Amino acid sequence: MTDPAFPSGFVSLVSAGPGDPELLTLKATRRLAEAEVVLFDDLASGPVLDHAGPEAELIAVGKRAGRPSARQEHVNALIILHAQAGRRVVRLKSGDAGIFGRLEEEIVALTEAGIPFEIVPGVTAAAAAAAAAHIPLTRRLTARRLQFVTGADVTGRLPQDINWAAIADPGVTTVVFMGQRSFPELARGLQDHGLPGTTPALFAEAVGHPQQRLVRTTVADLAKMMETAEVSQPGLILYGPLAFPKEG
Amino acid sequence: MTDPAFPSGFVSLVSAGPGDPELLTLKATRRLAEAEVVLFDDLASGPVLDHAGPEAELIAVGKRAGRPSARQEHVNALIILHAQAGRRVVRLKSGDAGIFGRLEEEIVALTEAGIPFEIVPGVTAAAAAAAAAHIPLTRRLTARRLQFVTGADVTGRLPQDINWAAIADPGVTTVVFMGQRSFPELARGLQDHGLPGTTPALFAEAVGHPQQRLVRTTVADLAKMMETAEVSQPGLILYGPLAFPKEG
Repeated sequence: MTDPAFPSGFVSLVSAGPGDPELLTLKATRRLAEAEVVLFDDLASGPVLDHAGPEAELIAVGKRAGRPSARQEHVNALIILHAQAGRRVVRLKSGDAGIFGRLEEEIVALTEAGIPFEIVPGVTAAAAAAAAAHIPLTRRLTARRLQFVTGADVTGRLPQDINWAAIADPGVTTVVFMGQRSFPELARGLQDHGLPGTTPALFAEAVGHPQQRLVRTTVADLAKMMETAEVSQPGLILYGPLAFPKEG
Repeated sequence: MTDPAFPSGFVSLVSAGPGDPELLTLKATRRLAEAEVVLFDDLASGPVLDHAGPEAELIAVGKRAGRPSARQEHVNALIILHAQAGRRVVRLKSGDAGIFGRLEEEIVALTEAGIPFEIVPGVTAAAAAAAAAHIPLTRRLTARRLQFVTGADVTGRLPQDINWAAIADPGVTTVVFMGQRSFPELARGLQDHGLPGTTPALFAEAVGHPQQRLVRTTVADLAKMMETAEVSQPGLILYGPLAFPKEG
């Protein structure tokens, strides 16, 4: 009783969503249930993996905030090895796999090896953070653009080729991934390029996990907070004309 | 056997995802199964509604491409009416509810009426379109920013306050929602602001539906196509350094 959409030797690149197992898609749970091998990031672990069948081999391949991770080439080689052995492989990636997930490297490796694959999209952490905070990501009149940026390039520092006119635009909701460490530097640049320090900001940590924490603040105050904060968990930063509920 | 997370008189603002019922989250299916009333956009209908229980009242409230929709105030009033009658209400919105979904209007109305609610995030059509086309939305070196814009403001025309430096940036993946009609005008502006007409573009129509159509092209060619195209279904436009597979 094999699912024709998930045959032997096939790789399903599955988005695990933000961490809450209730935010997995039906398709993701089905692929997990039928997988013979699941290669997962640490960020896509925990209760999400309960959807895998009891016979499935579960292999952790790294990507944890603040810790060195398995080399991407090693991950690619493992995926290909298991697929070439004729197994049904799920590569489980946190959030939406296509957003800051190094998905391209795995697509290229699979294509070069001639292995058939699919991509299962998922709920990005940005959508989950906004939902948890009861705010929309776009606003009809004041935030008609939404942008996702990264606070860390391949060296772990703030990227050097930032389009400041784009990210200091006060009429946009901006979501910063992997931006905790570099946020003080980013916030200085934003204010130098005209974004008021009083612009609303949201810090969302461990979204969808039991230890979820949401901090509603401003760009300037969040920068101060991040100067001394210890980064132990992945967090997201949102700033812009955020629709925080009015204080009573 | 009432779920404490979904009591009487409570409203769950549920993201229906891009249309493929397999891309609903587990949480969305659970809310649908327990709802006594489901108010849905036409775009969030079809097989997705099969998850509602047989006793649930299903109410269509509009939002169909090219057709007039129920007024937002009318939708708000209906949600509140059913919640105040003590029913468990699901308001089902297409894609991720927080992205170009007029979610804020409903949040404000519920807050003013003192009705408890939650937001269930979902898979945005942008992630589903990229997954269907086998491309990532971000690329580690060449697309470190991702932005979502709308091709139509409240009047249905291209917004007049466009930040061209942001959206003509060649190093970014841009997703245009509701942009089919205005794309020829948008593409002229992009090229006037330095974006090459040869920039890769993807047109994705009816993503996740059986009649899904993907067109891999360029900004200039897509603009020509959209000049004469009839807009019958909602479509998404992506442009930027898209990682289309190399021709063989």
